[in-house]
Amino acid sequence: MNVDADLAALREFLAANGLDGYLIDDDASDSDQRYVSGFTAPDPYQTLVTDDGVHLLVSGLEYGRASAEANADSVTRRAAYDYQQLVAEHGQYEGRIRTIAAFLADHDVDAIAVPRTFPTGTADGLREHDFTVTVESEGIVTDIRATKTDWELEQIRASQRANEAAMARAEELIATADIEDGILVHDGDPLTSERVTEEIEITLLRHGCSLDDTIVACGADAADPHDRGSGPLAADELIVIDIFPRDKETGYHADMTRTFARGDPGAAARRRYEVTREAYDAALEAVEAGVTGADVHGAACDVIEDAGYATLRSDPTTETGFIHSTGHGVGLDVHEQPSVSPAGGELQPGHVISIEPGLYDPNVGGVRIEDLIVVTADGYENLTEYRVRLEPMAGDPR
Amino acid sequence: MNVDADLAALREFLAANGLDGYLIDDDASDSDQRYVSGFTAPDPYQTLVTDDGVHLLVSGLEYGRASAEANADSVTRRAAYDYQQLVAEHGQYEGRIRTIAAFLADHDVDAIAVPRTFPTGTADGLREHDFTVTVESEGIVTDIRATKTDWELEQIRASQRANEAAMARAEELIATADIEDGILVHDGDPLTSERVTEEIEITLLRHGCSLDDTIVACGADAADPHDRGSGPLAADELIVIDIFPRDKETGYHADMTRTFARGDPGAAARRRYEVTREAYDAALEAVEAGVTGADVHGAACDVIEDAGYATLRSDPTTETGFIHSTGHGVGLDVHEQPSVSPAGGELQPGHVISIEPGLYDPNVGGVRIEDLIVVTADGYENLTEYRVRLEPMAGDPR
Repeated sequence: MNVDADLAALREFLAANGLDGYLIDDDASDSDQRYVSGFTAPDPYQTLVTDDGVHLLVSGLEYGRASAEANADSVTRRAAYDYQQLVAEHGQYEGRIRTIAAFLADHDVDAIAVPRTFPTGTADGLREHDFTVTVESEGIVTDIRATKTDWELEQIRASQRANEAAMARAEELIATADIEDGILVHDGDPLTSERVTEEIEITLLRHGCSLDDTIVACGADAADPHDRGSGPLAADELIVIDIFPRDKETGYHADMTRTFARGDPGAAARRRYEVTREAYDAALEAVEAGVTGADVHGAACDVIEDAGYATLRSDPTTETGFIHSTGHGVGLDVHEQPSVSPAGGELQPGHVISIEPGLYDPNVGGVRIEDLIVVTADGYENLTEYRVRLEPMAGDPR
Repeated sequence: MNVDADLAALREFLAANGLDGYLIDDDASDSDQRYVSGFTAPDPYQTLVTDDGVHLLVSGLEYGRASAEANADSVTRRAAYDYQQLVAEHGQYEGRIRTIAAFLADHDVDAIAVPRTFPTGTADGLREHDFTVTVESEGIVTDIRATKTDWELEQIRASQRANEAAMARAEELIATADIEDGILVHDGDPLTSERVTEEIEITLLRHGCSLDDTIVACGADAADPHDRGSGPLAADELIVIDIFPRDKETGYHADMTRTFARGDPGAAARRRYEVTREAYDAALEAVEAGVTGADVHGAACDVIEDAGYATLRSDPTTETGFIHSTGHGVGLDVHEQPSVSPAGGELQPGHVISIEPGLYDPNVGGVRIEDLIVVTADGYENLTEYRVRLEPMAGDPR
């Protein structure tokens, strides 16, 4: 990985607090560590940021790969600190602590900052060996990650290309389905949420991506933004498809939502689609560096409230209308900084965010339209190449 | 989920150490929490084990699902402790701590044990509110998880059925490939590691499973047990296929390895296959409750050493021969307790373990044969229904 991360803000924090290093002790599930180290492994490893560089402590099994792939100034294997002997002498738990202590001492570090999620076992163990361990509670690395480097933008674009292929496959299935007794039918079988989801996943797999979850929700299901959907897809109903894949190699996500309807979903649904599209246009129009995520969210709310629908701004307890925030950062995590919500701070060039207003009502169904964009100095660049259209079509979606 | 976990050993630990509760603060990636709570969520939630039950603290978004699905005696939403107001007043970090503190107080808990991986931010925050926080360093929950309940065995069996379908698809591709210039060819294109891997993943998806990784390695690639394999598969070479899927609903894994060869891999490869199979038979023969994982590993080493090959027991620095352990526990994690290695302790009824001896040499290639079994009072039950055979065949693999 070649993230080319700028860790200056982290080093300033260390200097300002008289600390020698920032230590992460986690595994592949921690995106901050993956970002800082340019490396990922299924088993825990340690990443130390000091004034003079980024240093990794890994098992012998990972040493070759870490040396070749990591964005690190040094990679050391545990055996260099007699890990096996320490475990044999002191047990697994204390042997591990002593190995990390030796790694820190080797880099002249005795006062460290750690992330909020740093293991208490490691923190307390190091404290018993007279290290100072302080939790860095502001999430500096997470904030740094919000601004994407050019290399990261390339990876996110690639994931969005895979996402577009998967959405096009789903749209094609819906567009070409027969309608029998009000139900979409393909090759003689009902076209279900589950079947469309499977085709989305297979298309993503063929493009090097995976996903843990996807949403293909029809009718009342789609009125709950968190319902994944199930069962046959119906004609004359709104169908919300939200796909958020992760590239299996790079770990970077994409995110996109489209809403389709076969047949006639009715005037209420069509109007909601148009209003959602206007809110999406207004939110996009509001985006530029220096504007806050709250302002962008406000622009979407203005349109929706003006059209006579509730938002959480006009009614904090509403269960219909626009009942989530306008967007979120996307990167190594599918939900990350910055926030495009009432709490959203200033947008900066290189922030990658989703713009995804929606309207929900169990009696009508759900509408959501979502693109992925990158904030620029005077606006945004849309990372999504996919038309916005309620009637599904087969073929090139650009 | 209906794990029906027996947490008596955890409660004995709490009582013996004068602690009121065991607290987990993690997300879907923590199998111990999923096991104890019978619940999983993408965002962090808290699970508290006390003398009188298992108690969950979740976001409003997860409350409905947690109430319906979790194995908990109580589920409380954060709003019950004024989470949003606390965050507004004290910030995200301290607001979260105060909410957890109120949850603990509500259950009359002021001295807690936490897992090694418990977030230092939460531990230190609770300590500042005068809670006693002690790391439970023995891994009691992980030990409890090693012994599977009947419900868990059903889930693992289901994952292994999916695994067998995927292996059968891979075997069929290899069995039915043409051979051109020493390379396996399918539909006119070289049959690559990547293509077989994709077909494995698609088959698993159709059976409700996913995987992060799989191994389809040929020739010298397969001589490194951790190489995932790449490029065209060759005739007259050993091909190792190791699949370890996870059921997307239940989270339970399966694990199986087979080794195939098209054409003639040569006498050295054939002999290695036979010796590996004998080691696999000997290891299976050694399994029963009361025997140690070390004994089972020893039985496999005996066969391999007697046949004249090195093991890590006969030569701790060898890079060829049998260069890993005989097996590991499989469940919510693909590698968990117990260990079937020199460090492996006593096997107990309900332990689910892999048995996977192998022989490796860059000049010959790799062989590995792996089944998944459950330990019983007087032997084992094999959870794998898949023949052991070097020449690949299409059709029913039982």
